[in-house]
Amino acid sequence: MLRLSSTGTMETTTITFFDLIRSDLSKVEQKMRVSPGDHDPNLIAALEHLLSSGGKRIRPALVLLSAGMLDADREHAITLAASVEMLHTATLVHDDLIDDASLRRGTPTINATLGPGATVLTGDYIFARAAYLAAEIGQQALMKIFARTLMTIVNGEISQMYATSSIDDGIPDYLERIYAKTASLFEVATEGAAILSEAGEETIAAMKSFGYNIGMAFQIVDDVLDFTANQERLGKPAASDLRQGLITLPVLYYLSSIGDRGEMRNKITQQQCDEVTLGEVISAIRSSNAIDQALNQAREFIDTGLSFLKEMPANPERSALYELADHIITRKT
Amino acid sequence: MLRLSSTGTMETTTITFFDLIRSDLSKVEQKMRVSPGDHDPNLIAALEHLLSSGGKRIRPALVLLSAGMLDADREHAITLAASVEMLHTATLVHDDLIDDASLRRGTPTINATLGPGATVLTGDYIFARAAYLAAEIGQQALMKIFARTLMTIVNGEISQMYATSSIDDGIPDYLERIYAKTASLFEVATEGAAILSEAGEETIAAMKSFGYNIGMAFQIVDDVLDFTANQERLGKPAASDLRQGLITLPVLYYLSSIGDRGEMRNKITQQQCDEVTLGEVISAIRSSNAIDQALNQAREFIDTGLSFLKEMPANPERSALYELADHIITRKT
Repeated sequence: MLRLSSTGTMETTTITFFDLIRSDLSKVEQKMRVSPGDHDPNLIAALEHLLSSGGKRIRPALVLLSAGMLDADREHAITLAASVEMLHTATLVHDDLIDDASLRRGTPTINATLGPGATVLTGDYIFARAAYLAAEIGQQALMKIFARTLMTIVNGEISQMYATSSIDDGIPDYLERIYAKTASLFEVATEGAAILSEAGEETIAAMKSFGYNIGMAFQIVDDVLDFTANQERLGKPAASDLRQGLITLPVLYYLSSIGDRGEMRNKITQQQCDEVTLGEVISAIRSSNAIDQALNQAREFIDTGLSFLKEMPANPERSALYELADHIITRKT
Repeated sequence: MLRLSSTGTMETTTITFFDLIRSDLSKVEQKMRVSPGDHDPNLIAALEHLLSSGGKRIRPALVLLSAGMLDADREHAITLAASVEMLHTATLVHDDLIDDASLRRGTPTINATLGPGATVLTGDYIFARAAYLAAEIGQQALMKIFARTLMTIVNGEISQMYATSSIDDGIPDYLERIYAKTASLFEVATEGAAILSEAGEETIAAMKSFGYNIGMAFQIVDDVLDFTANQERLGKPAASDLRQGLITLPVLYYLSSIGDRGEMRNKITQQQCDEVTLGEVISAIRSSNAIDQALNQAREFIDTGLSFLKEMPANPERSALYELADHIITRKT
């Protein structure tokens, strides 16, 4: 259980940011499962497999807490939370096909068990379901940011696939990639909740910035954990990004620390990563300053995010959002 | 040029159903191409390849003519037409991956040229763009039928992939499949246009039925052409459905005509379809009564569809819709 307050000090209470929204979160789970119409049993089974194999539900929590803080309609918030999580799930399903991944969160992927056809279709179905939920709310602004975000995510993945960007594009390019991949959907969660609350434009913009910043931090921490966390906890092999030739912030900081010198740089940039070399690279990065630098960058994003949150109504939901932001930077998985 | 009137007699005029909407159709083409935001050049190239390699644009024509007939907002109709065609295009892109198809309309598929990853992502992007266009219109009812239709299409494909249905399920199962695959999107085109026009519920329901029926006919004729049209015209090998073990209406009628007897039944039902056997099966079906029976069934759907159109305002757009329905049944590709 999380016990850190937003200031990083120990609290005596055991209340975590999930406690406030536990009953709404279980409604979100239901909402993700109920399908309109009579659907193929194989599809329902694949969906159930996906939804029950977990996920942190951090995006739904963000929606529910932001909506609660701003006193938005609760039913709409539950629907939006389900929609955002379905959109996220759909992109993961298709990612597993693109990356030819066999494991996700320690369980076999649909791609590994049922093949590419089933993977494409299951992902498509979840996209459709996410769009249907977003439409149920009946707010045009929300539908548009929803569709636009999907375009942003997909466009980012296409750029990555075509390796339009190179290692020399450095940190700005990395930040653009993690925006498309992660922060764009965090933005939808918090901006969407503000739209539901019928808050003014300034509040909507501030909540969007809050989501953006903690989303950027979230992905940086993910990329750090890919080097530092143990394999069992992550449910996937260490340095899985580097294995796929994907250069993340710890690698960029490490490369910048060694300058133009060294064999290690060649190994990384030329992607000659057999298991032995990969082991060397991982150790070098772990024992360098790069991990701390990346975490500091994440912390900066969190701090910027919290500066927007400070302007919001002081209530238990806001405290929970502070806690959630803390969790993003302190989590070990 | 089409010169058949709705009653099948020759007309002296050369006006076709496309003439009335030619300028709006070119706006639809533009709308499908313009992207909000700065997107990857590879993605833009893949999109351009897809959109310029044709397609009959029968769904956009249906939207524009139905909207024109009911005096709906023209800009909204153009947007809906683009959205419906994008949704259709996205499902085709993903289908090519699922079927591992190398040709579509005589041109290499994205799957064949760029591989599964690019295929999944290009399809996803087009889905998102379709949803964005639908959202632009700002009508909740429309967004919901849009998302629901995507679920119906995908669910149908999943059932087909898992072969949840068998040859013994016969014609009712076939009709359910072609509804999911084709008629559901025709329904959106005509029902959506009626919703835009702010017509009463009765008109919306009638236009939905019109779209449903001509959509069913469209797919049956497609399935007939798969046996009767020559390969060059179709841009794919003859009996491509049967090659994939997909049983369509001509095959079902043929099987019902030969009863339980005969080696041919075993060949089809056990899917022992090498090239020689396939040639035999194709000839047998072509020279049987099955093709005519299937076309009669298509004609029945057209007639039912037209009975709903009869109740609509008599104007040039309605005449063009009669012509479009005629084209569906008389076309050779």
